[in-house]
Amino acid sequence: MISKAKVKWVKSLQLKKYRQEEQCFLVQGLKGVQELINSGYKIELVAATGEVLEQVQGSTKTKTIEWLATSVKELEAMGSFQSNESILAVARMKNTSLPAHPQKEYMLALDNIRDPGNLGTIIRTADWFGISKIVASPHSADVYNPKTISATMGSFCRVDVIYAELTTYLSACDVPVYGAFLSGKNIHEVKFGSEGIVVVGNESNGISPGVEQFIHNKISIPGFGRAESLNAAIATGIILDNIFRSK
Amino acid sequence: MISKAKVKWVKSLQLKKYRQEEQCFLVQGLKGVQELINSGYKIELVAATGEVLEQVQGSTKTKTIEWLATSVKELEAMGSFQSNESILAVARMKNTSLPAHPQKEYMLALDNIRDPGNLGTIIRTADWFGISKIVASPHSADVYNPKTISATMGSFCRVDVIYAELTTYLSACDVPVYGAFLSGKNIHEVKFGSEGIVVVGNESNGISPGVEQFIHNKISIPGFGRAESLNAAIATGIILDNIFRSK
Repeated sequence: MISKAKVKWVKSLQLKKYRQEEQCFLVQGLKGVQELINSGYKIELVAATGEVLEQVQGSTKTKTIEWLATSVKELEAMGSFQSNESILAVARMKNTSLPAHPQKEYMLALDNIRDPGNLGTIIRTADWFGISKIVASPHSADVYNPKTISATMGSFCRVDVIYAELTTYLSACDVPVYGAFLSGKNIHEVKFGSEGIVVVGNESNGISPGVEQFIHNKISIPGFGRAESLNAAIATGIILDNIFRSK
Repeated sequence: MISKAKVKWVKSLQLKKYRQEEQCFLVQGLKGVQELINSGYKIELVAATGEVLEQVQGSTKTKTIEWLATSVKELEAMGSFQSNESILAVARMKNTSLPAHPQKEYMLALDNIRDPGNLGTIIRTADWFGISKIVASPHSADVYNPKTISATMGSFCRVDVIYAELTTYLSACDVPVYGAFLSGKNIHEVKFGSEGIVVVGNESNGISPGVEQFIHNKISIPGFGRAESLNAAIATGIILDNIFRSK
Protein backbone atom coordinates (compact mmCIF):
# COMPACT_ATOMS: atom_id res chain seq x y z
CA MET A 1 0.00 0.00 0.00
CA ILE A 2 1.32 3.37 -0.98
CA SER A 3 0.17 6.64 0.57
CA LYS A 4 -2.18 8.95 -1.30
CA ALA A 5 0.29 11.78 -0.85
CA LYS A 6 2.98 9.79 -2.62
CA VAL A 7 0.66 8.83 -5.47
CA LYS A 8 -0.18 12.50 -5.88
CA TRP A 9 3.47 13.53 -5.77
CA VAL A 10 4.51 11.04 -8.43
CA LYS A 11 1.57 12.00 -10.61
CA SER A 12 2.47 15.69 -10.30
CA LEU A 13 5.74 14.95 -12.14
CA GLN A 14 3.77 14.65 -15.37
CA LEU A 15 3.89 18.46 -15.35
CA LYS A 16 7.01 20.47 -16.04
CA LYS A 17 6.22 22.98 -13.30
CA TYR A 18 6.34 20.30 -10.60
CA ARG A 19 9.32 18.54 -12.17
CA GLN A 20 11.26 21.77 -11.90
CA GLU A 21 10.14 22.45 -8.35
CA GLU A 22 11.04 18.95 -7.24
CA GLN A 23 14.03 18.50 -9.58
CA CYS A 24 12.70 14.99 -10.19
CA PHE A 25 11.29 13.13 -13.20
CA LEU A 26 9.36 10.00 -14.05
CA VAL A 27 10.58 6.95 -15.94
CA GLN A 28 7.93 4.48 -17.06
CA GLY A 29 8.27 0.96 -18.40
CA LEU A 30 10.72 -1.87 -17.79
CA LYS A 31 13.34 -0.97 -20.40
CA GLY A 32 13.69 2.64 -19.18
CA VAL A 33 13.74 1.71 -15.49
CA GLN A 34 16.38 -0.98 -16.03
CA GLU A 35 18.61 1.46 -17.90
CA LEU A 36 18.02 4.04 -15.16
CA ILE A 37 19.10 1.61 -12.45
CA ASN A 38 22.35 0.93 -14.30
CA SER A 39 23.02 4.64 -14.84
CA GLY A 40 24.52 7.37 -12.72
CA TYR A 41 21.15 8.93 -11.87
CA LYS A 42 20.10 9.13 -8.24
CA ILE A 43 16.84 7.20 -7.93
CA GLU A 44 14.20 8.24 -5.41
CA LEU A 45 11.82 5.33 -5.78
CA VAL A 46 10.84 2.38 -7.91
CA ALA A 47 7.21 1.27 -7.89
CA ALA A 48 5.96 -1.92 -9.51
CA THR A 49 3.68 -4.88 -9.03
CA GLY A 50 5.24 -7.52 -6.77
CA GLU A 51 6.61 -9.87 -9.38
CA VAL A 52 8.18 -7.20 -11.56
CA LEU A 53 9.61 -5.45 -8.51
CA GLU A 54 11.36 -8.63 -7.32
CA GLN A 55 12.79 -9.21 -10.76
CA VAL A 56 14.29 -5.72 -11.00
CA GLN A 57 15.31 -5.55 -7.34
CA GLY A 58 17.17 -8.86 -7.63
CA SER A 59 19.65 -7.40 -10.07
CA THR A 60 20.34 -4.25 -8.03
CA LYS A 61 22.58 -4.20 -5.01
CA THR A 62 24.37 -0.92 -4.86
CA LYS A 63 21.79 1.83 -4.72
CA THR A 64 19.67 3.24 -1.93
CA ILE A 65 16.25 3.17 -3.46
CA GLU A 66 12.77 3.14 -1.96
CA TRP A 67 11.09 0.04 -3.39
CA LEU A 68 7.30 0.13 -3.49
CA ALA A 69 5.16 -2.91 -4.24
CA THR A 70 1.95 -1.56 -5.70
CA SER A 71 -1.24 -2.68 -7.36
CA VAL A 72 -1.80 -2.11 -11.07
CA LYS A 73 -4.43 0.44 -10.09
CA GLU A 74 -1.99 2.45 -8.00
CA LEU A 75 0.53 2.41 -10.84
CA GLU A 76 -2.10 3.69 -13.22
CA ALA A 77 -2.96 6.47 -10.80
CA MET A 78 0.68 7.56 -10.67
CA GLY A 79 1.67 7.37 -14.32
CA SER A 80 0.36 7.65 -17.84
CA PHE A 81 0.61 3.97 -18.54
CA GLN A 82 0.12 1.66 -21.34
CA SER A 83 -1.20 -1.58 -19.93
CA ASN A 84 2.00 -3.57 -20.40
CA GLU A 85 4.25 -1.20 -18.51
CA SER A 86 3.91 -2.28 -14.93
CA ILE A 87 6.82 -0.37 -13.43
CA LEU A 88 7.85 3.23 -12.89
CA ALA A 89 10.66 5.08 -11.19
CA VAL A 90 11.33 8.61 -9.99
CA ALA A 91 14.85 9.93 -10.45
CA ARG A 92 16.62 13.14 -9.58
CA MET A 93 17.63 15.47 -12.42
CA LYS A 94 21.32 15.80 -13.13
CA ASN A 95 23.13 19.09 -13.21
CA THR A 96 24.54 19.54 -16.67
CA SER A 97 26.53 22.46 -17.90
CA LEU A 98 26.87 23.81 -21.40
CA PRO A 99 29.39 21.60 -23.18
CA ALA A 100 32.49 22.91 -24.91
CA HIS A 101 32.30 22.87 -28.68
CA PRO A 102 32.92 19.38 -30.02
CA GLN A 103 36.43 18.13 -30.72
CA LYS A 104 36.79 14.90 -32.67
CA GLU A 105 33.10 14.23 -32.18
CA TYR A 106 29.67 15.30 -33.34
CA MET A 107 26.91 17.05 -31.43
CA LEU A 108 23.31 17.95 -32.22
CA ALA A 109 21.74 21.39 -31.77
CA LEU A 110 17.92 21.40 -31.70
CA ASP A 111 16.30 24.59 -32.95
CA ASN A 112 12.90 24.46 -31.29
CA ILE A 113 11.92 20.80 -31.57
CA ARG A 114 8.48 20.92 -29.96
CA ASP A 115 7.15 17.39 -29.97
CA PRO A 116 8.28 15.33 -26.93
CA GLY A 117 8.10 12.10 -28.95
CA ASN A 118 10.33 13.56 -31.67
CA LEU A 119 12.81 14.75 -29.05
CA GLY A 120 12.91 11.29 -27.49
CA THR A 121 13.41 9.61 -30.86
CA ILE A 122 16.22 12.05 -31.70
CA ILE A 123 17.93 11.24 -28.39
CA ARG A 124 17.64 7.51 -29.11
CA THR A 125 19.02 8.02 -32.61
CA ALA A 126 21.91 10.15 -31.32
CA ASP A 127 22.78 7.40 -28.85
CA TRP A 128 22.79 4.82 -31.68
CA PHE A 129 25.50 6.84 -33.39
CA GLY A 130 27.43 7.45 -30.19
CA ILE A 131 26.53 11.13 -29.81
CA SER A 132 26.30 12.02 -26.13
CA LYS A 133 25.58 15.76 -26.10
CA ILE A 134 22.64 17.74 -27.46
CA VAL A 135 22.18 21.49 -27.07
CA ALA A 136 18.52 22.50 -27.37
CA SER A 137 17.02 25.98 -27.72
CA PRO A 138 15.11 27.09 -24.59
CA HIS A 139 11.66 26.55 -26.14
CA SER A 140 12.37 23.01 -27.30
CA ALA A 141 10.38 20.17 -25.70
CA ASP A 142 11.41 19.14 -22.20
CA VAL A 143 13.78 16.19 -22.05
CA TYR A 144 12.13 15.17 -18.76
CA ASN A 145 8.62 15.02 -20.25
CA PRO A 146 7.46 11.40 -19.67
CA LYS A 147 6.73 11.04 -23.40
CA THR A 148 10.27 12.08 -24.24
CA ILE A 149 11.78 9.73 -21.68
CA SER A 150 9.66 6.84 -23.01
CA ALA A 151 10.59 7.49 -26.64
CA THR A 152 14.31 7.44 -25.79
CA MET A 153 14.01 3.73 -24.81
CA GLY A 154 16.61 4.28 -22.11
CA SER A 155 18.98 6.44 -24.16
CA PHE A 156 18.28 9.44 -21.88
CA CYS A 157 20.80 7.77 -19.53
CA ARG A 158 23.63 8.25 -22.02
CA VAL A 159 22.77 11.47 -23.84
CA ASP A 160 22.78 14.85 -22.10
CA VAL A 161 20.39 17.54 -23.31
CA ILE A 162 21.42 21.05 -22.32
CA TYR A 163 19.17 24.06 -22.94
CA ALA A 164 20.83 27.21 -24.25
CA GLU A 165 20.41 29.97 -26.80
CA LEU A 166 21.69 28.43 -30.02
CA THR A 167 22.75 31.73 -31.55
CA THR A 168 25.07 32.42 -28.63
CA TYR A 169 26.38 28.87 -28.59
CA LEU A 170 26.95 28.69 -32.35
CA SER A 171 28.38 32.18 -32.74
CA ALA A 172 31.50 31.18 -30.81
CA CYS A 173 31.85 27.89 -32.63
CA ASP A 174 34.85 27.02 -34.78
CA VAL A 175 33.81 23.56 -36.01
CA PRO A 176 31.62 22.94 -39.08
CA VAL A 177 27.93 23.55 -38.44
CA TYR A 178 25.52 21.59 -40.66
CA GLY A 179 21.81 22.10 -41.23
CA ALA A 180 19.29 20.67 -43.69
CA PHE A 181 17.81 23.02 -46.28
CA LEU A 182 16.01 22.06 -49.50
CA SER A 183 18.63 24.07 -51.37
CA GLY A 184 21.56 22.49 -49.56
CA LYS A 185 24.29 20.30 -50.97
CA ASN A 186 23.34 16.66 -51.55
CA ILE A 187 24.47 14.79 -48.40
CA HIS A 188 25.67 11.91 -50.54
CA GLU A 189 28.35 14.23 -51.93
CA VAL A 190 29.38 16.00 -48.74
CA LYS A 191 32.67 14.99 -47.19
CA PHE A 192 32.12 15.12 -43.47
CA GLY A 193 35.09 15.62 -41.18
CA SER A 194 35.77 14.20 -37.77
CA GLU A 195 33.86 16.85 -35.83
CA GLY A 196 30.87 19.12 -36.19
CA ILE A 197 27.44 20.19 -35.04
CA VAL A 198 24.23 19.19 -36.81
CA VAL A 199 21.37 21.65 -36.34
CA VAL A 200 17.88 20.12 -36.43
CA GLY A 201 15.05 22.53 -37.27
CA ASN A 202 11.54 22.91 -35.91
CA GLU A 203 8.87 20.46 -37.14
CA SER A 204 6.85 23.12 -38.96
CA ASN A 205 9.23 25.95 -39.65
CA GLY A 206 12.61 24.31 -40.05
CA ILE A 207 15.72 26.18 -38.97
CA SER A 208 15.04 29.74 -37.81
CA PRO A 209 16.68 32.72 -39.59
CA GLY A 210 18.61 33.68 -36.46
CA VAL A 211 20.25 30.26 -36.33
CA GLU A 212 20.61 29.89 -40.11
CA GLN A 213 23.25 32.63 -40.22
CA PHE A 214 25.63 30.36 -38.32
CA ILE A 215 25.17 27.42 -40.67
CA HIS A 216 27.95 27.51 -43.23
CA ASN A 217 27.32 23.97 -44.44
CA LYS A 218 23.82 23.66 -45.84
CA ILE A 219 22.98 20.09 -46.76
CA SER A 220 19.98 18.28 -48.22
CA ILE A 221 18.61 14.75 -48.35
CA PRO A 222 17.74 13.75 -51.91
CA GLY A 223 14.05 12.92 -52.36
CA PHE A 224 12.36 11.23 -55.29
CA GLY A 225 8.69 11.58 -54.43
CA ARG A 226 6.28 14.38 -53.66
CA ALA A 227 6.45 14.72 -49.89
CA GLU A 228 7.48 18.29 -49.09
CA SER A 229 9.70 17.35 -46.20
CA LEU A 230 10.81 14.60 -43.88
CA ASN A 231 9.96 14.29 -40.20
CA ALA A 232 12.70 16.01 -38.15
CA ALA A 233 13.81 12.82 -36.40
CA ILE A 234 13.93 10.86 -39.68
CA ALA A 235 16.06 13.57 -41.28
CA THR A 236 18.39 13.47 -38.27
CA GLY A 237 18.80 9.71 -38.60
CA ILE A 238 19.61 9.90 -42.31
CA ILE A 239 22.09 12.76 -41.83
CA LEU A 240 23.88 10.94 -39.01
CA ASP A 241 24.13 7.73 -41.06
CA ASN A 242 25.75 9.77 -43.84
CA ILE A 243 28.16 11.47 -41.46
CA PHE A 244 29.28 8.28 -39.77
CA ARG A 245 29.71 6.36 -43.01
CA SER A 246 32.08 8.96 -44.45
CA LYS A 247 33.80 10.14 -41.30
CA MET B 1 -24.38 26.04 -37.22
CA ILE B 2 -23.89 22.35 -37.64
CA SER B 3 -26.32 19.69 -36.41
CA LYS B 4 -25.56 17.68 -33.29
CA ALA B 5 -26.02 14.49 -35.28
CA LYS B 6 -23.32 15.53 -37.71
CA VAL B 7 -20.91 16.49 -34.94
CA LYS B 8 -21.51 13.07 -33.41
CA TRP B 9 -21.03 11.32 -36.74
CA VAL B 10 -17.71 13.03 -37.46
CA LYS B 11 -16.50 12.37 -33.93
CA SER B 12 -17.39 8.69 -34.25
CA LEU B 13 -14.78 8.38 -37.03
CA GLN B 14 -12.06 8.56 -34.37
CA LEU B 15 -12.86 4.87 -33.83
CA LYS B 16 -11.95 2.16 -36.30
CA LYS B 17 -15.27 0.37 -35.83
CA TYR B 18 -17.23 3.37 -37.09
CA ARG B 19 -14.72 4.17 -39.83
CA GLN B 20 -15.23 0.69 -41.19
CA GLU B 21 -19.01 0.86 -40.93
CA GLU B 22 -19.11 4.22 -42.68
CA GLN B 23 -16.12 3.61 -44.98
CA CYS B 24 -15.10 7.18 -44.14
CA PHE B 25 -12.15 8.76 -42.33
CA LEU B 26 -11.10 12.04 -40.81
CA VAL B 27 -8.38 14.42 -41.99
CA GLN B 28 -7.37 17.19 -39.60
CA GLY B 29 -5.28 20.28 -40.18
CA LEU B 30 -4.70 22.57 -43.14
CA LYS B 31 -1.85 20.71 -44.80
CA GLY B 32 -3.68 17.38 -44.85
CA VAL B 33 -6.99 18.87 -46.01
CA GLN B 34 -5.32 20.79 -48.83
CA GLU B 35 -3.56 17.66 -50.06
CA LEU B 36 -6.84 15.74 -49.77
CA ILE B 37 -8.68 18.29 -51.91
CA ASN B 38 -6.04 17.95 -54.63
CA SER B 39 -6.17 14.16 -54.50
CA GLY B 40 -8.45 11.53 -56.04
CA TYR B 41 -10.32 10.92 -52.77
CA LYS B 42 -14.06 11.54 -52.67
CA ILE B 43 -14.67 14.14 -49.98
CA GLU B 44 -17.86 14.13 -47.93
CA LEU B 45 -17.42 17.38 -46.06
CA VAL B 46 -14.98 20.08 -45.09
CA ALA B 47 -15.57 21.94 -41.82
CA ALA B 48 -13.63 25.02 -40.76
CA THR B 49 -13.95 28.43 -39.22
CA GLY B 50 -15.22 31.00 -41.73
CA GLU B 51 -11.91 32.55 -42.77
CA VAL B 52 -10.05 29.28 -43.24
CA LEU B 53 -13.02 27.80 -45.09
CA GLU B 54 -13.09 30.66 -47.61
CA GLN B 55 -9.37 30.35 -48.19
CA VAL B 56 -9.57 26.64 -48.95
CA GLN B 57 -12.86 26.85 -50.85
CA GLY B 58 -11.49 29.58 -53.10
CA SER B 59 -8.91 27.25 -54.57
CA THR B 60 -11.36 24.41 -55.22
CA LYS B 61 -13.76 24.39 -58.14
CA THR B 62 -14.19 20.86 -59.32
CA LYS B 63 -15.47 18.80 -56.41
CA THR B 64 -18.91 18.37 -54.90
CA ILE B 65 -18.18 18.91 -51.25
CA GLU B 66 -20.37 19.91 -48.34
CA TRP B 67 -18.72 23.03 -46.88
CA LEU B 68 -19.50 23.75 -43.25
CA ALA B 69 -18.62 27.00 -41.52
CA THR B 70 -18.20 26.17 -37.86
CA SER B 71 -17.09 27.65 -34.59
CA VAL B 72 -13.79 26.59 -33.01
CA LYS B 73 -15.87 24.90 -30.31
CA GLU B 74 -17.74 22.78 -32.85
CA LEU B 75 -14.48 21.80 -34.51
CA GLU B 76 -13.06 20.76 -31.19
CA ALA B 77 -16.15 18.66 -30.52
CA MET B 78 -15.69 16.84 -33.83
CA GLY B 79 -11.97 16.22 -33.87
CA SER B 80 -8.96 15.71 -31.66
CA PHE B 81 -7.48 19.07 -32.37
CA GLN B 82 -4.43 20.97 -31.54
CA SER B 83 -5.39 24.60 -31.23
CA ASN B 84 -3.79 25.70 -34.48
CA GLU B 85 -5.59 23.23 -36.69
CA SER B 86 -8.86 24.93 -37.48
CA ILE B 87 -10.05 22.70 -40.30
CA LEU B 88 -11.09 19.09 -40.81
CA ALA B 89 -12.50 16.99 -43.62
CA VAL B 90 -14.23 13.65 -43.96
CA ALA B 91 -13.29 11.54 -46.98
CA ARG B 92 -14.42 8.20 -48.32
CA MET B 93 -11.98 5.29 -48.18
CA LYS B 94 -10.57 4.06 -51.45
CA ASN B 95 -10.76 0.48 -52.61
CA THR B 96 -7.26 -0.82 -52.98
CA SER B 97 -6.27 -4.28 -54.09
CA LEU B 98 -3.13 -6.21 -53.26
CA PRO B 99 -0.40 -4.92 -55.56
CA ALA B 100 1.63 -7.14 -57.85
CA HIS B 101 5.20 -7.69 -56.71
CA PRO B 102 7.34 -4.68 -57.54
CA GLN B 103 9.05 -4.32 -60.87
CA LYS B 104 11.68 -1.62 -61.26
CA GLU B 105 10.52 -0.11 -57.99
CA TYR B 106 10.65 -0.59 -54.24
CA MET B 107 7.84 -1.37 -51.83
CA LEU B 108 7.61 -1.61 -48.05
CA ALA B 109 6.10 -4.50 -46.08
CA LEU B 110 5.19 -3.69 -42.48
CA ASP B 111 5.33 -6.61 -40.09
CA ASN B 112 3.03 -5.50 -37.30
CA ILE B 113 3.85 -1.82 -36.90
CA ARG B 114 1.53 -0.93 -34.02
CA ASP B 115 1.98 2.76 -33.35
CA PRO B 116 -0.23 5.00 -35.55
CA GLY B 117 2.34 7.80 -35.41
CA ASN B 118 5.12 5.48 -36.56
CA LEU B 119 2.93 4.23 -39.40
CA GLY B 120 2.19 7.80 -40.49
CA THR B 121 5.87 8.75 -40.37
CA ILE B 122 6.78 5.66 -42.41
CA ILE B 123 4.18 6.63 -45.04
CA ARG B 124 5.60 10.17 -45.20
CA THR B 125 9.13 8.80 -45.52
CA ALA B 126 8.09 6.34 -48.26
CA ASP B 127 6.51 9.24 -50.16
CA TRP B 128 9.74 11.25 -49.87
CA PHE B 129 11.56 8.44 -51.67
CA GLY B 130 8.81 7.96 -54.25
CA ILE B 131 7.47 4.68 -52.87
CA SER B 132 3.74 4.46 -53.45
CA LYS B 133 2.74 1.02 -52.14
CA ILE B 134 2.96 -0.47 -48.69
CA VAL B 135 1.71 -3.92 -47.72
CA ALA B 136 0.96 -4.17 -44.00
CA SER B 137 0.20 -7.25 -41.90
CA PRO B 138 -3.43 -7.39 -40.71
CA HIS B 139 -2.61 -6.38 -37.10
CA SER B 140 -0.60 -3.32 -38.08
CA ALA B 141 -1.96 0.10 -37.06
CA ASP B 142 -4.85 1.46 -39.12
CA VAL B 143 -3.83 3.82 -41.90
CA TYR B 144 -7.12 5.70 -41.36
CA ASN B 145 -6.44 6.35 -37.67
CA PRO B 146 -6.47 10.18 -37.30
CA LYS B 147 -3.01 10.06 -35.69
CA THR B 148 -1.64 8.15 -38.67
CA ILE B 149 -3.24 10.50 -41.18
CA SER B 150 -1.84 13.52 -39.29
CA ALA B 151 1.68 12.12 -39.13
CA THR B 152 1.71 11.50 -42.90
CA MET B 153 1.51 15.30 -43.48
CA GLY B 154 -0.60 14.67 -46.58
CA SER B 155 1.41 11.75 -47.93
CA PHE B 156 -1.55 9.37 -47.36
CA CYS B 157 -2.87 10.82 -50.64
CA ARG B 158 0.03 9.34 -52.61
CA VAL B 159 0.89 6.13 -50.77
CA ASP B 160 -1.51 3.17 -50.68
CA VAL B 161 -1.45 0.89 -47.64
CA ILE B 162 -2.91 -2.55 -48.30
CA TYR B 163 -3.45 -5.06 -45.49
CA ALA B 164 -2.50 -8.67 -46.23
CA GLU B 165 -0.76 -11.67 -44.70
CA LEU B 166 2.92 -10.98 -45.33
CA THR B 167 3.92 -14.64 -45.40
CA THR B 168 1.50 -15.32 -48.26
CA TYR B 169 2.51 -12.19 -50.10
CA LEU B 170 6.25 -12.74 -49.70
CA SER B 171 6.20 -16.48 -50.38
CA ALA B 172 5.27 -15.88 -54.01
CA CYS B 173 7.79 -13.07 -54.43
CA ASP B 174 10.70 -13.23 -56.88
CA VAL B 175 12.36 -9.86 -56.13
CA PRO B 176 14.93 -9.32 -53.35
CA VAL B 177 13.35 -9.02 -49.90
CA TYR B 178 15.35 -6.98 -47.36
CA GLY B 179 14.96 -6.80 -43.62
CA ALA B 180 17.05 -5.28 -40.81
CA PHE B 181 18.67 -7.64 -38.32
CA LEU B 182 21.53 -6.87 -35.94
CA SER B 183 23.48 -9.69 -37.61
CA GLY B 184 22.73 -8.47 -41.14
CA LYS B 185 25.17 -7.18 -43.73
CA ASN B 186 26.26 -3.55 -43.29
CA ILE B 187 23.91 -1.47 -45.51
CA HIS B 188 26.83 0.69 -46.54
CA GLU B 189 28.26 -2.33 -48.34
CA VAL B 190 25.07 -3.74 -49.85
CA LYS B 191 24.56 -3.21 -53.57
CA PHE B 192 20.86 -2.60 -53.99
CA GLY B 193 19.24 -3.35 -57.33
CA SER B 194 16.43 -1.55 -59.09
CA GLU B 195 13.61 -3.39 -57.32
CA GLY B 196 12.81 -4.99 -54.01
CA ILE B 197 10.73 -5.11 -50.88
CA VAL B 198 11.91 -3.75 -47.52
CA VAL B 199 10.30 -5.43 -44.52
CA VAL B 200 9.93 -3.24 -41.42
CA GLY B 201 9.58 -5.09 -38.13
CA ASN B 202 7.42 -4.49 -35.09
CA GLU B 203 8.52 -1.77 -32.63
CA SER B 204 9.25 -4.18 -29.77
CA ASN B 205 9.83 -7.55 -31.40
CA GLY B 206 11.30 -6.75 -34.79
CA ILE B 207 10.58 -9.04 -37.71
CA SER B 208 8.56 -12.14 -36.78
CA PRO B 209 10.00 -15.64 -37.38
CA GLY B 210 7.24 -16.46 -39.88
CA VAL B 211 8.21 -13.49 -42.03
CA GLU B 212 11.96 -13.84 -41.45
CA GLN B 213 12.09 -17.07 -43.49
CA PHE B 214 11.29 -15.07 -46.62
CA ILE B 215 14.05 -12.51 -46.06
CA HIS B 216 17.07 -13.62 -48.03
CA ASN B 217 18.86 -10.28 -47.70
CA LYS B 218 19.48 -9.48 -44.05
CA ILE B 219 20.91 -6.01 -43.61
CA SER B 220 22.00 -3.86 -40.67
CA ILE B 221 22.57 -0.20 -39.92
CA PRO B 222 25.99 0.37 -38.33
CA GLY B 223 25.73 1.88 -34.86
CA PHE B 224 28.51 3.38 -32.76
CA GLY B 225 26.80 3.97 -29.43
CA ARG B 226 24.94 1.91 -26.87
CA ALA B 227 21.32 2.17 -27.95
CA GLU B 228 20.03 -1.35 -28.55
CA SER B 229 17.98 -0.45 -31.57
CA LEU B 230 16.62 2.36 -33.69
CA ASN B 231 12.99 3.46 -33.89
CA ALA B 232 11.29 1.54 -36.74
CA ALA B 233 10.55 4.67 -38.78
CA ILE B 234 14.12 5.98 -38.37
CA ALA B 235 15.54 2.65 -39.53
CA THR B 236 13.22 2.75 -42.54
CA GLY B 237 14.41 6.23 -43.47
CA ILE B 238 18.07 5.27 -43.24
CA ILE B 239 17.57 2.07 -45.25
CA LEU B 240 15.68 3.90 -48.00
CA ASP B 241 18.34 6.60 -48.24
CA ASN B 242 20.93 3.84 -48.71
CA ILE B 243 18.84 2.08 -51.35
CA PHE B 244 18.15 5.19 -53.38
CA ARG B 245 21.74 6.41 -53.24
CA SER B 246 23.10 3.20 -54.72
CA LYS B 247 20.24 2.21 -57.01
